[in-house]
Amino acid sequence: MKRIYIKDLKDHVGKEVSISGWVSVRRDQGKMVFMDIRDMSGNVQCVVLPNHTEPLETVKEVRNQWVLEITGQVNKRPEKNIKAAVVNGDIELEITAINILSKAQELPFDIDSDLNLDTYFDYLPLTLRTQKARDIFTMQASIVEAYRSSLRSQKFMEFQAPALVAGDAEGGGAAFKVEYFYDKAAYLATSPQLYKEIMVGPFERAFTIAKIFRAEKSATTRHLSELTQMDFEMGFIKNHLDVMAVLEQVIRDVVTTVSEKHQDIFERFNIQKPQMPEKFPIFTLREAQEIISKETGVDSTDAIDMEPEHEKIICEYALKNLGSDFVFITHYPTKKRAFYTYADPTNPELSLSFDLLFRGLEINSGSQRIHDYNMMIEKMKSRNVNPENFTFYLQAFKYGLPPHGGCSTGLERLTARMLQLGNVKEASVFPRDLNRIDNRLSE
Amino acid sequence: MKRIYIKDLKDHVGKEVSISGWVSVRRDQGKMVFMDIRDMSGNVQCVVLPNHTEPLETVKEVRNQWVLEITGQVNKRPEKNIKAAVVNGDIELEITAINILSKAQELPFDIDSDLNLDTYFDYLPLTLRTQKARDIFTMQASIVEAYRSSLRSQKFMEFQAPALVAGDAEGGGAAFKVEYFYDKAAYLATSPQLYKEIMVGPFERAFTIAKIFRAEKSATTRHLSELTQMDFEMGFIKNHLDVMAVLEQVIRDVVTTVSEKHQDIFERFNIQKPQMPEKFPIFTLREAQEIISKETGVDSTDAIDMEPEHEKIICEYALKNLGSDFVFITHYPTKKRAFYTYADPTNPELSLSFDLLFRGLEINSGSQRIHDYNMMIEKMKSRNVNPENFTFYLQAFKYGLPPHGGCSTGLERLTARMLQLGNVKEASVFPRDLNRIDNRLSE
Repeated sequence: MKRIYIKDLKDHVGKEVSISGWVSVRRDQGKMVFMDIRDMSGNVQCVVLPNHTEPLETVKEVRNQWVLEITGQVNKRPEKNIKAAVVNGDIELEITAINILSKAQELPFDIDSDLNLDTYFDYLPLTLRTQKARDIFTMQASIVEAYRSSLRSQKFMEFQAPALVAGDAEGGGAAFKVEYFYDKAAYLATSPQLYKEIMVGPFERAFTIAKIFRAEKSATTRHLSELTQMDFEMGFIKNHLDVMAVLEQVIRDVVTTVSEKHQDIFERFNIQKPQMPEKFPIFTLREAQEIISKETGVDSTDAIDMEPEHEKIICEYALKNLGSDFVFITHYPTKKRAFYTYADPTNPELSLSFDLLFRGLEINSGSQRIHDYNMMIEKMKSRNVNPENFTFYLQAFKYGLPPHGGCSTGLERLTARMLQLGNVKEASVFPRDLNRIDNRLSE
Repeated sequence: MKRIYIKDLKDHVGKEVSISGWVSVRRDQGKMVFMDIRDMSGNVQCVVLPNHTEPLETVKEVRNQWVLEITGQVNKRPEKNIKAAVVNGDIELEITAINILSKAQELPFDIDSDLNLDTYFDYLPLTLRTQKARDIFTMQASIVEAYRSSLRSQKFMEFQAPALVAGDAEGGGAAFKVEYFYDKAAYLATSPQLYKEIMVGPFERAFTIAKIFRAEKSATTRHLSELTQMDFEMGFIKNHLDVMAVLEQVIRDVVTTVSEKHQDIFERFNIQKPQMPEKFPIFTLREAQEIISKETGVDSTDAIDMEPEHEKIICEYALKNLGSDFVFITHYPTKKRAFYTYADPTNPELSLSFDLLFRGLEINSGSQRIHDYNMMIEKMKSRNVNPENFTFYLQAFKYGLPPHGGCSTGLERLTARMLQLGNVKEASVFPRDLNRIDNRLSE
């Protein structure tokens, strides 16, 4: 018999059908046995009644996470047993035959209980099956697709940025070293920055969804050693505001998509979808600091960057006063940004750079870039970056690159804030950090 | 003045407009100067006439790859100068003002000449601007998006497979070693296989576009050290034929998409779009060998795998006799395939595996997989694979996984055969191999 998806059972009331899926709950009442069965489309309650002796024998052996092919009749539930708020809450499958596709060993714990994060990660092949985990990565898949789709509609060309690079581009030992061929060293990319700038030459507008790797010994709730960056770069801009306009459209498209598709997920997480006013608020760093100083009563106007705590405060301010879960901060001090960042011609101490904050966290960082070859060489030298290590990249500038800019969104951070997860690691399907690559490294 | 894209110039005949782009050709005729200007949308011929003294002064200095903002009037060309086959062949932009956005140094060579491959790679920031390179990566972007789109419509969930892994999964030293934290070793993934099988648990059907890395000291036209794999895995299958059916639909969708979108690219490459009959031909390895033996007059029926030369012969046979650029080969010897491959129950010497060949090259490899925990442990032991190195992965099996299978398509190989490129490296935007990471490593 052809398999029916569980979400379609409601169209087969009174008929005999076949479903397949995992046992997620099993309640043995002696004379009869109830099971909740999950497939990719939903859940349904099944029951083996006393008169079905063969499946009743089989089901006695069945346990949580076993994989079954079930034949049965779709019945309307009696009025008093209807659960209105639950999908398939008004039907039940009366099992007439069970075919065991795969057995499972006894589970180490109740997977729907509130696990501590390390246990949850230790058992991901099991715990990713929970509703919560499936919701997170369903949301993430929609985010990444909406991000790409928005950029495509804004004429950006997708490309595959490399993960293996020849040098530790940003310096400071933030890159992992790789044993390449013939005892040569290679490194893992800390950013697709140089490559996306090169791609401005052929395509003007380019984007990449790239894995990047950070060897920082940082164990905060905001750090991963392997993460997914959604980067774009665009030529022929006037300044950083052109980049921010594209990004705002992308974020708007992402939020609109997930708000339409995943109302159920927002409800299960008991959170609101992100609020967006007509225009995202934009503050210079200085303006933001003045607001923060007023809000906290502590003068923080001479800090050269934003502390995580300050990012939270300005986001709370923007939500409360401007109805926005997103805030742009611009004009970070030039010396605090990467060497390729374009300084404000009217005040070179400040750069034409920006961060986008979302619900208290920086999820995107961008800027106009230096495009003139000679200016770039001078800037590298002033930062003690050796241009000879960048000869490949510098060709893009040597052979003519227009004024351009771009930015980079952390997929895990965006996902984490979308669902207000406490730790960005929860938004990485197989998170890598100081102490973990699948298993804990201390083991 | 608002910038107009070059492809839209035909709608502005007789009007003054502004365009921006790169100088791709410059012909100085003394009294006037012609330039071809390229932007993301197309090319157009521009001319500075003798009466425009200011731009004429500027344009004397201009060289190939300079980036210009140009103001001018769109003129119809005189009948005798119309180039009918060329986009914008019937118009010309009469330049009234030039604003230099970026200068370029003298080019090392004519970038449109037939470069040897190493020179082409040495200068990618420049050579990627050629029509040929832009065509290859425009095609590639469409392939990857059509691939994803087809899988989404077939209910597959996208996920981000990790690149950093704890062990050299497939063994044999094919994995690059990474210096991880605290002197611990990590490796670069040689495949997302284990992770996509895990993802069958939560989602039944999952796919990933993943970077993988191969430390094989192989310098053929078919090998890269970093490549992009398009992998999917699906649960509740009957056998490998279910996987092949999904793959065939994906390939059909890809070919249909690129055939519709990129007729111009196929024409510039002077090649046909791929031919697909009603159903892709399927041969067992044995059947293919018999055909090859007949075609060549040399008996090759006792080989346990297909030589590259044989893949070419069977593809030529399928195109000539069955009108198909694609051929499935199934039932490779079990011992030649990875440990997780499902053996044919009716003949365990052969596996429920397949390759998909496209124009003479294997572009995809897949199979039904072992899903039973105990069978998997036994199989690992018989292959001298230590199950203790796979405890994380094996949880998926321990806790119930349905019969499943999947496959993996090499994006660079598919792109290369789509455009009949001689070397798969040409289909990697920044190729890495034995001797190159951007620059040549011997330097």
